[in-house]
Amino acid sequence: MMPQLGLLPRRACAALLSQLLRRAACNHAVGYHSQIVEAVLTSQLKPYQKKPNFIKIPKGTRDLSPKQMVVREKILDMVISCFKRHGGKGLDTPAFELKEMLTEKYNEQSGLMYDLEDQGGELLSLRYDLTVPFARYLAMNKLKKMKRYQVGKVWRRESPSIVQGRYREFYQCDFDIAGQFDPMIPDAECLRIIYEILSGLQLGDFLIKVNDRRIIDGIFAVCGVPESKFRTICASMDKLDKISWKDVRHEMVAEKGLAPEVADRIGDYVQHHGGVSLVEHMLQDPRLSQNKQALEGLGSLKLLSEYLTLFAIMEKISFDLSLVRGLDYYTGVIYEAVLLQTPAQAGEDPLNVGSVAAGGRYDELVAIFDPNGHRVPCVGLSIGIERIFHIVEQRMKTSGKKVRTTETQVFVATPQRNFLRERLKLIAELWDAGIKAEMLYKNNPKLLPQLQYCEKRGIPLVVIIGEEEQKEGVIKLRSVATREEEAIKREHLVTEIQKRLSQS
Amino acid sequence: MMPQLGLLPRRACAALLSQLLRRAACNHAVGYHSQIVEAVLTSQLKPYQKKPNFIKIPKGTRDLSPKQMVVREKILDMVISCFKRHGGKGLDTPAFELKEMLTEKYNEQSGLMYDLEDQGGELLSLRYDLTVPFARYLAMNKLKKMKRYQVGKVWRRESPSIVQGRYREFYQCDFDIAGQFDPMIPDAECLRIIYEILSGLQLGDFLIKVNDRRIIDGIFAVCGVPESKFRTICASMDKLDKISWKDVRHEMVAEKGLAPEVADRIGDYVQHHGGVSLVEHMLQDPRLSQNKQALEGLGSLKLLSEYLTLFAIMEKISFDLSLVRGLDYYTGVIYEAVLLQTPAQAGEDPLNVGSVAAGGRYDELVAIFDPNGHRVPCVGLSIGIERIFHIVEQRMKTSGKKVRTTETQVFVATPQRNFLRERLKLIAELWDAGIKAEMLYKNNPKLLPQLQYCEKRGIPLVVIIGEEEQKEGVIKLRSVATREEEAIKREHLVTEIQKRLSQS
Repeated sequence: MMPQLGLLPRRACAALLSQLLRRAACNHAVGYHSQIVEAVLTSQLKPYQKKPNFIKIPKGTRDLSPKQMVVREKILDMVISCFKRHGGKGLDTPAFELKEMLTEKYNEQSGLMYDLEDQGGELLSLRYDLTVPFARYLAMNKLKKMKRYQVGKVWRRESPSIVQGRYREFYQCDFDIAGQFDPMIPDAECLRIIYEILSGLQLGDFLIKVNDRRIIDGIFAVCGVPESKFRTICASMDKLDKISWKDVRHEMVAEKGLAPEVADRIGDYVQHHGGVSLVEHMLQDPRLSQNKQALEGLGSLKLLSEYLTLFAIMEKISFDLSLVRGLDYYTGVIYEAVLLQTPAQAGEDPLNVGSVAAGGRYDELVAIFDPNGHRVPCVGLSIGIERIFHIVEQRMKTSGKKVRTTETQVFVATPQRNFLRERLKLIAELWDAGIKAEMLYKNNPKLLPQLQYCEKRGIPLVVIIGEEEQKEGVIKLRSVATREEEAIKREHLVTEIQKRLSQS
Repeated sequence: MMPQLGLLPRRACAALLSQLLRRAACNHAVGYHSQIVEAVLTSQLKPYQKKPNFIKIPKGTRDLSPKQMVVREKILDMVISCFKRHGGKGLDTPAFELKEMLTEKYNEQSGLMYDLEDQGGELLSLRYDLTVPFARYLAMNKLKKMKRYQVGKVWRRESPSIVQGRYREFYQCDFDIAGQFDPMIPDAECLRIIYEILSGLQLGDFLIKVNDRRIIDGIFAVCGVPESKFRTICASMDKLDKISWKDVRHEMVAEKGLAPEVADRIGDYVQHHGGVSLVEHMLQDPRLSQNKQALEGLGSLKLLSEYLTLFAIMEKISFDLSLVRGLDYYTGVIYEAVLLQTPAQAGEDPLNVGSVAAGGRYDELVAIFDPNGHRVPCVGLSIGIERIFHIVEQRMKTSGKKVRTTETQVFVATPQRNFLRERLKLIAELWDAGIKAEMLYKNNPKLLPQLQYCEKRGIPLVVIIGEEEQKEGVIKLRSVATREEEAIKREHLVTEIQKRLSQS
């Protein structure tokens, strides 16, 4: 064993030996190894016992500061409010699933999954999205219909990019409609939800690109793409939003071995985007109209456009034949929303954040889980909350708008020494009345630091307890903004505070 | 290598070979191994590629159904509302930390941590609580003061127990006050927060046991416990809430080798609990009053009781000399809240859920992270939200109270065939007005199933579009509860709906 150990980094070496020791089946083997192992483990494990001399968090993760939490809370409230407006039921699934539940659902992207260490129990992986857990939930509970939303963190071992707001740990906000229904109605509602959320967040102008997997497959078929190259040519097409058709075509031909004339034929189709007239035009296309898949896809998009018109959102929709989307489980309509940069925002860093929402129909995913293969068609959407959050944060920095990190309404202060007990008693009365109140954790604070505490945090009201007022049975109530003070009878204090807070 | 491989389970074997292959430093080694590895990997990995024939979630985890989500949302809203009432700022930290950040912070309990697999990057572990990440955050950002709350999931590989509501993945709701302040004021506020939350949740009568690490250390010292046995004797004492003193004493003597007379001396102290008079009595104790640590702890509790009296919560406080708490980082006051079972609840399953809230002072934790050893004293609390949730769920089952899983206010229906487009147009108007509305995803639904949909989900209002009414420019607005219908002019519909919703 020892020579090969030199190939392994120290920690893997220690882990290996640990494993061997634990799993040694016979005493003799344990005895033989134990001295060597003991020595190696001791020397290998030393680094763990050192005090960390540099405090770090894992690559691609971040803490959210109180300021960021306030922003995130606002955005999430707005998103969940929309989900509830559309009748979504909440659901929560575990952060990790059995590895076998997640494996093979994402295909080439599963190399980016976080696995948990084999610690002698089940093999687990952190969930990669919220869609596969949803499909697992439906199959496990034998549900045929469900309209659910789920907001939670997911984890992917991608190359992080702080500039683009791309992390390894991030929130997703999903809304999915599972069930066999009349065509395109739930699909239309998903697009309406994306529209409502992006409009409501006031991020500026946006576009929702829409396509259909069957149209893509149909285009590939009529253009002569060999079936074995479907996926890899899709991957090239996925770059059309970042690089030109010329460069994508070059990649297809030079790197992926596609015949140049096939690539040209694809180019004739996928460079088009537009309204329903594009769909109608394609339905007349001599080659595409001979392809069953493409016809189905185009027919769906035509019906969809009627519903989107009734939903009054067609102005934001663009049927885009180049849209492919990475995940392999989509079977029908697919969509992706992008923000459009306006001249007014030119002063900001180029957004370049990719899509802010996406989704599509995935009719075969639940069936993979169900041992009897019972099919539950699904359509859904995912809001790219981190990217939206990134944009809103940038804008707040630029605007310089102040954000309160607490919601404290009243501060209990005193200029008086030895009045701690009075402050404690009074603040408890405020808390009893549901008033949000703070005080300094000082026995004898000076008045100025207390007032500065309020100004810094935007606390609107201060109650000031003083010896004289106390003798008269009154408390001073001061407005931090105006600095005006009023003497209020102690027994009326809570009522007066509540009145002022409700008026502001 | 091959003979030893027989000692390893298949998956570990595959993992090992994977590692060797990835880390092989020289081409020759790669070439030499690759054929063997390929064969082994292929045969080892076959189980992963099979369709799972039984759908499971990881041991000790659970999905939360829509009903459970509604209950959890209510409880969390209430807890966070209390945290905000006390001026807490929100914070979020990653689900996993660098293993070295978490190692050695929990001592004997760190064997229960979930490690992430070494996939060639940093060694990571899922966070075990929210306190150590908080200390890491403070040290990393060089903060000297902070009052923060954090609500999030944590993971522990404990033996799960569904009966006791103990899972491997669970929420914690933490509130902590970091900073050097005048003594016992923040500590008192933490206890006040526990009191407010448990009272507000109306779980029945409860008790908050309070003790101090320095008193425990002082008791052990004056009783003659060898310092090397402090921790293990503490662990025995921790069982006093479940088993009798007689059995605990037996464990100390027979299993842990404590001298019987030392155990008896301990018993003289730790079987006491009471109000501030107990603290005053102990301050007079001839042996304890000679011990500096004990005196400090007792003095703190005495001061604390004054503040708790001013906070009007002393009736729920019990100074309990047997309270130890498992986590090693506490340095001062410690507390634990338990529910008291009343005769009225005798019909329920015995609760036996352990504590529902706990916490204490931990002054040295941040310094472990800070390379310069800068100390930031902290005190905090953690609400056992899962246990509370378990209790509330049990009670709801018993009461049979119906819980709505959606917040939908209006259902858009029609008895008419070919009125899909009218429904789509109208529901979009309702959504535009912020009204929570649903419709069936059917082209031509019958009226009865639509009304049943409303009744099942508790949707209060239905708009019914019919051909005749449409000609007259009116819509029928029906109350699901009373079944009364009223014809409303189309242009007044939204206003009428909003009026009715605000009245209900």
